[in-house]
Amino acid sequence: MKNLDDGSTSADWQTVSTETNFQNDHLEVVTEQTRTPSRRAPQPWTIVRRKRAVTIAALTSDRKLLLIRQERIPVRAAIWEVPAGQIDEKTELDAGAIAAVALRELREETGFELAEGGELLPLGDYFTSPGMTDEHVYLFLARPVRPSATGHAHEESESILDCQAFGAAELRRMIDQSEIRDGNTLGICAHLLARGLLSFDHK
Amino acid sequence: MKNLDDGSTSADWQTVSTETNFQNDHLEVVTEQTRTPSRRAPQPWTIVRRKRAVTIAALTSDRKLLLIRQERIPVRAAIWEVPAGQIDEKTELDAGAIAAVALRELREETGFELAEGGELLPLGDYFTSPGMTDEHVYLFLARPVRPSATGHAHEESESILDCQAFGAAELRRMIDQSEIRDGNTLGICAHLLARGLLSFDHK
Repeated sequence: MKNLDDGSTSADWQTVSTETNFQNDHLEVVTEQTRTPSRRAPQPWTIVRRKRAVTIAALTSDRKLLLIRQERIPVRAAIWEVPAGQIDEKTELDAGAIAAVALRELREETGFELAEGGELLPLGDYFTSPGMTDEHVYLFLARPVRPSATGHAHEESESILDCQAFGAAELRRMIDQSEIRDGNTLGICAHLLARGLLSFDHK
Repeated sequence: MKNLDDGSTSADWQTVSTETNFQNDHLEVVTEQTRTPSRRAPQPWTIVRRKRAVTIAALTSDRKLLLIRQERIPVRAAIWEVPAGQIDEKTELDAGAIAAVALRELREETGFELAEGGELLPLGDYFTSPGMTDEHVYLFLARPVRPSATGHAHEESESILDCQAFGAAELRRMIDQSEIRDGNTLGICAHLLARGLLSFDHK
C-alpha cells in the first residue's frame, strides 16, 4: 500500500469499474465508478486521460523569460506561452529523463538551449484541470539559455508564429491584462515568484 | 467580421468539419478540421469542450486567502484549491451574471460571503489547457469575506473536506512544495501577485 501526499493511502482510492467512451492518439475519455477516502459508495466520474507534459521557464542571461506565440485551435487564438510538450513514454520516468524532454521541447520550440555552465532546475508539478483530466505537468527552470546553432525545429502539427524574451515588468502587465492566459505560463510564473526567481516589485 | 485580441479576425479561423466523438452532461469531444490564420490547409484537431467556469480568490479581513481541500477523482488526490464552479448557461452572460456565479460558488463551497461594504473585482480570464480544451475560466477577487449565516452548501457530487485561510508566507511555501498544484489556484495567485494584491516578499 502506497502512502499518498495527502495522508491517505492508495488503498483508499478504488476504481470499481471503467468504461471507455472514446480513445484516439491524443486522449482517452473514460467514465469510472470510484470509491474515494471520504466516500465509500462508488460514484461515476467522466475523466479525460492525457499524456503527462513538461513546461519550461527559460531565462536569458539578462533574466528575461522566453515565450512563444502559438496558434491554439481549441481556443481559436494565438497566445503567448512558455514552451511545453508531452511525455510520450507511458511508463514511470526518472527525473533525468523528464528533464531531457524539457530541454528537447525548449530547443524544438524556441531554438534556444542551456548555455555552457547553465542549470536546469525542477520547480515542481501541477494538474491543469483536476476536476476533468489527469493531465499532469512537470515544471522546469533553465538558466541561462542561448540561441542554439541549429535553431528551432517545429513539429508539423504546431503553429508557432514567434518567440521573444520578456522582462518582469512586461510579464506583470501581460498577466494583469490577460495577454498571458494559459495555465502553464501562469502556473510557472507563480512558481518563479514563490522562489524569488522572478519579482513583481510594487514599491 | 469580428476583430480578435491577437490581431487576426474571426474570418481567419474556419471550421471546415466537425465530428462528435463523445458527449455527455459534463463534456463533449469533437474532432474538427480547421483553417487557422497561419495555415490555410485544414488540419484535424481533437478538442474537449467544457462549460466555462469561475474561480474566486476570497480574502479575509486579515488578508488571508480561503482554500478548500477537495477530493479530485481524475487525479486521485485531495488537494487545496480556491473555490470554483461551472457556468451552466451556454449563452453569453454579462459581467454581472458571471460575478453572481462566482459569489454563489464562494458561498456554497466555503460558507463565506462578501462582507458588507466589500468588493468583488474581475481579475481577468485564462484557458486551463488550450492545446486540448476550450475550458475558459473567469477569475475574481472578493474582499473582505466573512462567514455567512447559512454556512456552506456542498453539492452532492463534491467531496470538500476542509476550508481554511492561508497567509502569504504559507501560500508561498505551498506553491514551492507543489502542495498547491492546480491550474486555478496557481493562475489566480499569479494574477494577485501581478496586481500587488498578494506579495511574496523575499527581502
